[in-house]
Amino acid sequence: MTKKVWGGRFRENINETVDAFNSSIGFDGRLYAQDIEGSMAHCRMLAKQGIISDDDAARILDALTEIKREIERGELRITDEHEDIHTFVEKALIEKTGAVGEKIHTARSRNDQVALDVRMYVREAVERVSGMIKELQKALVGVAGKNIELIMPGYTHLQPAQPVLLAHHLMAYYEMLKRDRQRFEDSIKRVNILPLGSAALAGTTFNLDREMVAKELGFDSVSMNSMDAVSDRDFVIEFIFASSVLMMHLSRLSEDMIIWSSMEFGYVALPDAFCTGSSIMPQKKNPDILELIRGKTGRVYGNLISLLTVMKGLPLTYNKDMQEDKEALFDTIDTISQCLSVITMLLGRVTFNGDSMKKATQDGYIMATDLADYLVNKGMTFRSAHETAGKIVLYAIDRKKHLEELSLEEYKGFAVQIDSDVFKWLEPASAIKRRNITGGTGSEAVEKAINRAKKETAS
Amino acid sequence: MTKKVWGGRFRENINETVDAFNSSIGFDGRLYAQDIEGSMAHCRMLAKQGIISDDDAARILDALTEIKREIERGELRITDEHEDIHTFVEKALIEKTGAVGEKIHTARSRNDQVALDVRMYVREAVERVSGMIKELQKALVGVAGKNIELIMPGYTHLQPAQPVLLAHHLMAYYEMLKRDRQRFEDSIKRVNILPLGSAALAGTTFNLDREMVAKELGFDSVSMNSMDAVSDRDFVIEFIFASSVLMMHLSRLSEDMIIWSSMEFGYVALPDAFCTGSSIMPQKKNPDILELIRGKTGRVYGNLISLLTVMKGLPLTYNKDMQEDKEALFDTIDTISQCLSVITMLLGRVTFNGDSMKKATQDGYIMATDLADYLVNKGMTFRSAHETAGKIVLYAIDRKKHLEELSLEEYKGFAVQIDSDVFKWLEPASAIKRRNITGGTGSEAVEKAINRAKKETAS
Amino acid sequence: MTKKVWGGRFRENINETVDAFNSSIGFDGRLYAQDIEGSMAHCRMLAKQGIISDDDAARILDALTEIKREIERGELRITDEHEDIHTFVEKALIEKTGAVGEKIHTARSRNDQVALDVRMYVREAVERVSGMIKELQKALVGVAGKNIELIMPGYTHLQPAQPVLLAHHLMAYYEMLKRDRQRFEDSIKRVNILPLGSAALAGTTFNLDREMVAKELGFDSVSMNSMDAVSDRDFVIEFIFASSVLMMHLSRLSEDMIIWSSMEFGYVALPDAFCTGSSIMPQKKNPDILELIRGKTGRVYGNLISLLTVMKGLPLTYNKDMQEDKEALFDTIDTISQCLSVITMLLGRVTFNGDSMKKATQDGYIMATDLADYLVNKGMTFRSAHETAGKIVLYAIDRKKHLEELSLEEYKGFAVQIDSDVFKWLEPASAIKRRNITGGTGSEAVEKAINRAKKETAS
Amino acid sequence: MTKKVWGGRFRENINETVDAFNSSIGFDGRLYAQDIEGSMAHCRMLAKQGIISDDDAARILDALTEIKREIERGELRITDEHEDIHTFVEKALIEKTGAVGEKIHTARSRNDQVALDVRMYVREAVERVSGMIKELQKALVGVAGKNIELIMPGYTHLQPAQPVLLAHHLMAYYEMLKRDRQRFEDSIKRVNILPLGSAALAGTTFNLDREMVAKELGFDSVSMNSMDAVSDRDFVIEFIFASSVLMMHLSRLSEDMIIWSSMEFGYVALPDAFCTGSSIMPQKKNPDILELIRGKTGRVYGNLISLLTVMKGLPLTYNKDMQEDKEALFDTIDTISQCLSVITMLLGRVTFNGDSMKKATQDGYIMATDLADYLVNKGMTFRSAHETAGKIVLYAIDRKKHLEELSLEEYKGFAVQIDSDVFKWLEPASAIKRRNITGGTGSEAVEKAINRAKKETAS
Repeated sequence: MTKKVWGGRFRENINETVDAFNSSIGFDGRLYAQDIEGSMAHCRMLAKQGIISDDDAARILDALTEIKREIERGELRITDEHEDIHTFVEKALIEKTGAVGEKIHTARSRNDQVALDVRMYVREAVERVSGMIKELQKALVGVAGKNIELIMPGYTHLQPAQPVLLAHHLMAYYEMLKRDRQRFEDSIKRVNILPLGSAALAGTTFNLDREMVAKELGFDSVSMNSMDAVSDRDFVIEFIFASSVLMMHLSRLSEDMIIWSSMEFGYVALPDAFCTGSSIMPQKKNPDILELIRGKTGRVYGNLISLLTVMKGLPLTYNKDMQEDKEALFDTIDTISQCLSVITMLLGRVTFNGDSMKKATQDGYIMATDLADYLVNKGMTFRSAHETAGKIVLYAIDRKKHLEELSLEEYKGFAVQIDSDVFKWLEPASAIKRRNITGGTGSEAVEKAINRAKKETAS
Repeated sequence: MTKKVWGGRFRENINETVDAFNSSIGFDGRLYAQDIEGSMAHCRMLAKQGIISDDDAARILDALTEIKREIERGELRITDEHEDIHTFVEKALIEKTGAVGEKIHTARSRNDQVALDVRMYVREAVERVSGMIKELQKALVGVAGKNIELIMPGYTHLQPAQPVLLAHHLMAYYEMLKRDRQRFEDSIKRVNILPLGSAALAGTTFNLDREMVAKELGFDSVSMNSMDAVSDRDFVIEFIFASSVLMMHLSRLSEDMIIWSSMEFGYVALPDAFCTGSSIMPQKKNPDILELIRGKTGRVYGNLISLLTVMKGLPLTYNKDMQEDKEALFDTIDTISQCLSVITMLLGRVTFNGDSMKKATQDGYIMATDLADYLVNKGMTFRSAHETAGKIVLYAIDRKKHLEELSLEEYKGFAVQIDSDVFKWLEPASAIKRRNITGGTGSEAVEKAINRAKKETAS
Repeated sequence: MTKKVWGGRFRENINETVDAFNSSIGFDGRLYAQDIEGSMAHCRMLAKQGIISDDDAARILDALTEIKREIERGELRITDEHEDIHTFVEKALIEKTGAVGEKIHTARSRNDQVALDVRMYVREAVERVSGMIKELQKALVGVAGKNIELIMPGYTHLQPAQPVLLAHHLMAYYEMLKRDRQRFEDSIKRVNILPLGSAALAGTTFNLDREMVAKELGFDSVSMNSMDAVSDRDFVIEFIFASSVLMMHLSRLSEDMIIWSSMEFGYVALPDAFCTGSSIMPQKKNPDILELIRGKTGRVYGNLISLLTVMKGLPLTYNKDMQEDKEALFDTIDTISQCLSVITMLLGRVTFNGDSMKKATQDGYIMATDLADYLVNKGMTFRSAHETAGKIVLYAIDRKKHLEELSLEEYKGFAVQIDSDVFKWLEPASAIKRRNITGGTGSEAVEKAINRAKKETAS
Repeated sequence: MTKKVWGGRFRENINETVDAFNSSIGFDGRLYAQDIEGSMAHCRMLAKQGIISDDDAARILDALTEIKREIERGELRITDEHEDIHTFVEKALIEKTGAVGEKIHTARSRNDQVALDVRMYVREAVERVSGMIKELQKALVGVAGKNIELIMPGYTHLQPAQPVLLAHHLMAYYEMLKRDRQRFEDSIKRVNILPLGSAALAGTTFNLDREMVAKELGFDSVSMNSMDAVSDRDFVIEFIFASSVLMMHLSRLSEDMIIWSSMEFGYVALPDAFCTGSSIMPQKKNPDILELIRGKTGRVYGNLISLLTVMKGLPLTYNKDMQEDKEALFDTIDTISQCLSVITMLLGRVTFNGDSMKKATQDGYIMATDLADYLVNKGMTFRSAHETAGKIVLYAIDRKKHLEELSLEEYKGFAVQIDSDVFKWLEPASAIKRRNITGGTGSEAVEKAINRAKKETAS
């Protein structure tokens, strides 16, 4: 345990267990680069405003540069006896520069400093995650494009519903991910605001140039209320929320692929390199990766509830409860990064079994809607057509026949309007062709969607 | 129980308990206006595209108009024997128009219909809630303006930290609410997309003009993937998330006001009309309203977790689990609307006790930071200044004196640089004056913030 | 709005919107029977202790009996202008008895009264829910018994693992439900404690006989700390937690059945009366009921988080936030009651497709573990046996053969120890026979489990 | 990366990123002692049943003992290239014993093995946590006993309500913790069940003596359904739930102490060694420890939601999602252990300010209930007495007088029954004396409670 930055008013040193409990360096060490970069901008501004001398500033900047380099090279280790990364850096600075370094904390508090560091960290995370989502989108577009001709049953309620292109199904996830990226990117306008200058809570008495610091550090604007600035963690919660919805989407994709890779569905084969076996059952090849992604959804949801709970009912301004934000944030960033990376790699290696899919399109009476539409085209109202098609299906089930195996006479027994063109109409491929409406599963519609997606993810 | 729209293929009627369990009309009746408006736009488009005749369309439109009017007048009651609001409206239509009404469901499924209705509902809710948030912002600005001269201790860790203007404290909530409105409004771009035309999941076989429907109903665009369109509930979850953060902010405001209205703080007096008493303790006047708002935060968080859980791991496309979205959404809308309305009214009636606040600014050594800043201005490094000020505080505590009660000699005992100007410097009002940095608690800075806020909420 | 029970100290009536927001009668009306029963016991005790006269007590008791009867008959309607059920009953009492009724609230506060009512309500709910769980257990035992000979693949990771009896799979849920009942019943010792006598928070000044009231109302003991008694909602949260785990189990059972009722698995046929169709797809028969149960899991989880959030960080003792407990509790009770009832009915009507199951046991190399065990019995170490069996499986997959289709020569190519008895050994039915260990899937073991279960659920 | 235990059927090695993602050794290394102890019992039983030879067993047991010792001494490091702790131990065993070690996994799967390890771990955690809760209870009893004469205002809605003993307030937490211990201990009957013998999911084909293993490892019984045994994580979730309620209680205690240590309340002084200061404000002494405990409540709630989400809707039996149970469990155990330890230490060092408390009992009209009770004793009905007392309070507020400062004439103006004995009656100490009902705040009642508590925590 090192000397605290706040010892003057205390008669007694902090209890060691308490110190360990209180200390955040075990996890906030991650913020060292942001902390140093922020301190350098602060220092340059202090000098420009004449609050510290140019010479002092130069010595501080040199030392901070050195500290950063030493940390990156592993020469300076961030160790547990410091309270947090801010005091660690400040002490390293004072060690290198003596009393000069004691000036760096002028016009600043750890309250606005940590807000700064975390905002810079989240800003970078948004950019990185957004890029990873785009990579996953590209992978989906790639798989969709490669398998553009495969027809499978589309499902509602896990029951075969209507024929769709596998590519169309995959492109549904493209759309979800597009919203995910949008959500992350929308949040930036609430992240990218400079809190520095808010000091502990009330603003500082020194004549700072906040706009200069904002500009140097790439912030869009400065915060407009110092009390809000030091007690706002909305941007962390919003990041974890965007991550929760992302994970929800990945859990659905995982679920689809787990079901498809079941022996009974047999639509997809996962590469050996992405599966694991059993310590007891020699035949097993399990989709562990997909299950883990599905499972990790719970973890991110948990982080969301964690921080919402922390912030509930806290009086203004900063309270130590807020220190809990960082582990939840970092765990979320790590989790979604891993999941995105692994599933993107996996998608590049899966192979689909067109035969199983095709067979399934024949087994499930999934042409019944098209049969009803056929009847509407022949002049029936939709409700009567639906009722009639339902009866034909029931008749076929009773006889264990597929729809295409019924005779024209049998059809005519239900509706005289039915003609021999019904058989061509009832081929799954015809169903696909008929659905070239925007957003539909028709091949042209899907190809358009793929091309649009390629453009959207090109940059 | 009425005849189902899907009976053709079933041999047996639905079990009554199951029917009650399955039915959503008990809560989705709320969507009747959206459902009818959507059906009317769909109908006009079907006619324009020649899918139904102009005469049929006219009869359907007349009947739908009538149905809406009858519901609004209470002549047509939405009763529990129907499965959902969609079948209720369709049946009412068929009762009025016979077989003609059976055509309305052409090229449509309840899957895209319910997505449409809920999107329209959320869109309106966002607008209404955004307006209510603005009203609350105005109320805050009003109270801040009226009490612009009141100085109070600003708190961190619920310990007096530095003097601030009450108005500055209140304006912190203005900033939070600004982000809340932004979040609701950002979500609109993901809400305001027409799903109709997606049919059950694969798109329809009919030649629809989706853009026409989108335009009529005020949507910005049409959905780009039918499978996504019927299984997307992101926009509902995002609404509840924005509501959760809003409630978190309201819970903090409530907490602040509950603490301030305690006998011990005594900063605020709530109007009798906004308090309740005790059935046993005659003296009690309790801030129930604020406590209820704080408590209802849990309810909205619960709704968020509810829907995130529902959607986790669902395979594509629509699954009946999703029916759970509506009650959570409606409860959230009702809850935040009530809370916003009640707290806005309350703020219009609170009175602040400037004397209690002033007294508190004298009791808490809250000028210690300014004392340190004073020492820095006299040439000390910040770290030494902080240490010295800490020792002075400890010295004063031991003698049960306020900082301003120490003599100049006593001060000089700690630092010879200290001069008689220190006493003026240590007045809370001086501290306020020194903090006119953007976002700070200086009177000018706060007045600027209030004026900016007035402009932002003017329209 | 009626006159408040706490008006004396107030100059101004409560604002109407605030009154509506504050009022709980819209949901706590449900507690009328508990409230009246509790008041009657309180009244008898007050008389016995000489705090009120016997005559007054008699009049109060008569009036309360009458009020209860009138509510049950619908003659007295619980209407919204009252603050809560306690004041509603008190006012009805005063209307019937005049000033005498004003004595009922002696030595009591709504704080201990509502705690009493809710405890009585939860106690009854635990009993009812516990009975419903038992009914579901019986239904499972019934289905297991009826289908005792059916063999299916057991799954891990949704991949076929080893042959099991369907009955064994179903009995796994029996065990989960047993724990659920236990959890509900364990909670009773924390529910069944009389809070009355705690008054507002400090205990009453009257000489009550709390043990008498406890005995009359069937409580096991009286609360030991008045401040805890009025601010404890653990028992509500614990009920919702037990419900959450129950729902988690039902969500897994639903998931299993949804997958089994997919066309691709085809293991189970749900009765038409428990399914619903599609408004557009005539062939659809959807397992909506099971999906709804799975979905409603989210709702109960949400209620859990809701109350945990409400209680977090509340200072002692009662705070109005706690009023939020009731809706979450009631919704949970209703939800789990419905789900239990519906799934129990459903299980009584499902039929299983033994042929599909049997076929699946042959397709999935699920005898590979038994092949390894065979090799261990022939002297190999387990790890070598596992490795060898894995290679045999890979060899068979490459040749698109089932394990039983390999020749003895082929087997011997992998391990000379293998003999012709391997073929008998590799029949799924043999695998079942070999697993009669306690808890295993052997027919005898499962029959024993069924018989044990019958005894456990007999009473 | 080391050779997998399941490689036989795989053509391709696992991808390295996938391996890192899939691997659990980073956190399940914690289970090494349980894993080894379980393996030793399994081994002894295999020998006793003649499944492996006594010689082999002896060599395995020796090697396992050695491995455990080496790990404890740091000679054998648990490194990341292994998949999990089970394979790590198995490999270390095979390295020491060659082919003999390959026999340890006979009749066992990692599915039942990990269930065993975690159950043993949770069992120990329950015992340890239960002991720590008892220490905290003792600390509360100690502080209560030392401060038995201090009177303070009891609060509802954070408004002064009635006088209570500080000891009574503290003992409310004793009761909460008693329930917490009970909940942990009740869970043991669902934890302490041996899963071994369930193998992968179906039970093993070997003739095991499960009861022998259960007895050796201290389990109360063996699991009754193998499929349930490998997919049951109820006991983990139940542990985290009990922890959530515990944390909720600690968050309330923290909140009380944070409020009490505010300058405005001033009831409690925290020792310097348990507080921290500010990097900028020299006067600050913040109750960080209490805030951190309050904040960490969110973390444990998050872990609860995490696992409930993970398990929702999983088909039987084991799925890899379940691997997520461990980190949430371990983090919960660590968090509650730290919080319990720190707050217990803190309570041993706090000092209370009886003067502040006493002053507050005079300021808040908290004798109004006793005034009403006085009137009831003089013959008024409770409702009239309440109304009258309310009016007297209002009268006193208007004149800025305390109740005891009103003259007898003024009192008589409200109710002629009031006599000069009212002044004695209205002393807070009298109110305490009148509340010696069981559970009340009377000194005798509280002393009894303290003595009862001492007995309950004596062992």
